[in-house]
Amino acid sequence: MLRALDGEVVWPPPIWLMRQAGRYLPEYRALRASAADFLTLVTTPELAAEVTLQPLRRFGFDAAILFSDILILPWALGHGLAFREGEGPVLPKLRDAAGVAALDPARLPGAIAPVLETVRRVRAGIAAEGHDAALIGFAGGPFTVACYMVEGGGSKDFAATRRMAYAEPALFAALMERLTEATIAYLSAQAEAGADVLMLFDSWAGVLSPSLFARHVIAPTQRIVRALKGSGTRIIGFPRLAGAMLGPYAPETGVDAVGMDTATDPLWARGAVPRGVTLQGNLDPIALLAGGEALRTEISSILAAMRGRPFVFNLGHGILPETPLEHVEALVECVRAS
Amino acid sequence: MLRALDGEVVWPPPIWLMRQAGRYLPEYRALRASAADFLTLVTTPELAAEVTLQPLRRFGFDAAILFSDILILPWALGHGLAFREGEGPVLPKLRDAAGVAALDPARLPGAIAPVLETVRRVRAGIAAEGHDAALIGFAGGPFTVACYMVEGGGSKDFAATRRMAYAEPALFAALMERLTEATIAYLSAQAEAGADVLMLFDSWAGVLSPSLFARHVIAPTQRIVRALKGSGTRIIGFPRLAGAMLGPYAPETGVDAVGMDTATDPLWARGAVPRGVTLQGNLDPIALLAGGEALRTEISSILAAMRGRPFVFNLGHGILPETPLEHVEALVECVRAS
Repeated sequence: MLRALDGEVVWPPPIWLMRQAGRYLPEYRALRASAADFLTLVTTPELAAEVTLQPLRRFGFDAAILFSDILILPWALGHGLAFREGEGPVLPKLRDAAGVAALDPARLPGAIAPVLETVRRVRAGIAAEGHDAALIGFAGGPFTVACYMVEGGGSKDFAATRRMAYAEPALFAALMERLTEATIAYLSAQAEAGADVLMLFDSWAGVLSPSLFARHVIAPTQRIVRALKGSGTRIIGFPRLAGAMLGPYAPETGVDAVGMDTATDPLWARGAVPRGVTLQGNLDPIALLAGGEALRTEISSILAAMRGRPFVFNLGHGILPETPLEHVEALVECVRAS
Repeated sequence: MLRALDGEVVWPPPIWLMRQAGRYLPEYRALRASAADFLTLVTTPELAAEVTLQPLRRFGFDAAILFSDILILPWALGHGLAFREGEGPVLPKLRDAAGVAALDPARLPGAIAPVLETVRRVRAGIAAEGHDAALIGFAGGPFTVACYMVEGGGSKDFAATRRMAYAEPALFAALMERLTEATIAYLSAQAEAGADVLMLFDSWAGVLSPSLFARHVIAPTQRIVRALKGSGTRIIGFPRLAGAMLGPYAPETGVDAVGMDTATDPLWARGAVPRGVTLQGNLDPIALLAGGEALRTEISSILAAMRGRPFVFNLGHGILPETPLEHVEALVECVRAS
């Protein structure tokens, strides 16, 4: 995994899956039932570390990804957060300067302590259980985190956030500034605690017009990458639904690797993203759910497009809870046999 | 408008807006209240023609677009359809071969008769009122129409549709085949009734992986374009959220123009789409809603990117109901003064 992220062609390519620690695993569902709620699960190092290790034991993936949530960062800054069953996250709506001022960086170290303890426990667990796996820490892209804070949760198109970015640029810039600084502190701490790789999930980057994308995705990512360059980790950027803007994103931000979403044509990305930047992705989770002939065809076509390129096999979006375990097994076998 | 679609550089560029006949207009809201429901409004030629002409009178746009809905096509084939206030369309879920077989092409001519009558009335109205405007007819892309039929309405990610495409390829191909044939018949009839331009709204093209995009967006669009080549109309393809696949889409389908969505960088599109294909788009409707300095900046940047290119100014997505009329006036002035 680390060699592939350092720009080496490793074949068969390393493989891990977005949301690999999660509801499609019976052992996850069993452990999940023992925690009061999702936030407790994420902030209890013993449980979060156990969940992080589960998919390694079952599938021998080449990376573990910290079991956490991108909204832990605003929560750690003092912004409210609740996860309601079947409803997704619920947050207070941030709409003014007072809301930005209330985000308190001084709270961060104390609040993220359990996350860092989880990283250390996973690090130790990987060694103790003899997995040959990298450890990925992560954060949300500042724009995506801002989206949830402004809307107060998920949204179809994050219209209130985009409107704020256009109509109240100073307010939105202040929010982005505070989140970007906090993201740097949060990711640096994860690197120090033992993460080999840091991934930046900018899940809603694709709702932005090109000018806002440059200002609120590329610029803050560039700043985060520069600040983390000395940490010895590799950084994977994932500006989901960025479309053709994935081309300029990769060299302008300085990330070591970019995640391709489901809609990205790997052959196009091979040409559009400089060779020095490793590509990661991008099997459609619905193909993994469907299985059979279609799954084999999709896997082969990604592998064919990526052969000879520094590459990490992954999905283009998180694995779906209904995914049969045998399909995941077949995927791993198929990639390892390539 | 027609010269721009025929590949001529027309400056200032022609302008019209997606959903320009709609809820942001007080005259639309007044007329809407007089119809029992949305489906009645769309299928009553007198009302639909009036609604279509309203934005021309107010803003002098360079094109009128038929006031209708992409789901009129499955409805005309006998598939159920209801529009519930604030909820969007509701349809029976199509999940098996019997559902496909029930789509009856023999019903089409009778069912679409009111739509064609609307086209004729708008044609006559444009002439009678002395507007210098092209008339755009439209249909949904077959994939997008299939999405609504399989899901039974809107969806976040159209997972059931994509799953059918992977897991039951023969069934999904049969559905696509029937919809593609019906789309050709429907659009041909609109051309005959007086539409100068036909637009294909493939709003959910962007949820597809590259292989499914080739099979269910590019291939059927190519077939539709070929079948309509003799009709004397121009065809605008709008595979929304296609990202970098907009590049191959344009030459492979043979469309005269492509719509750029909000996230597309016009400068990228200028390089990626062959010069013979006219570009249309792509102001962010949220920038139009916000107004002010941000709106002027966004308009200027699109105009600067498109200068010297066959181009039609438009939004990148439909106009929002809350958009102030003065912002639309300012937009038209700004484009006309360029």
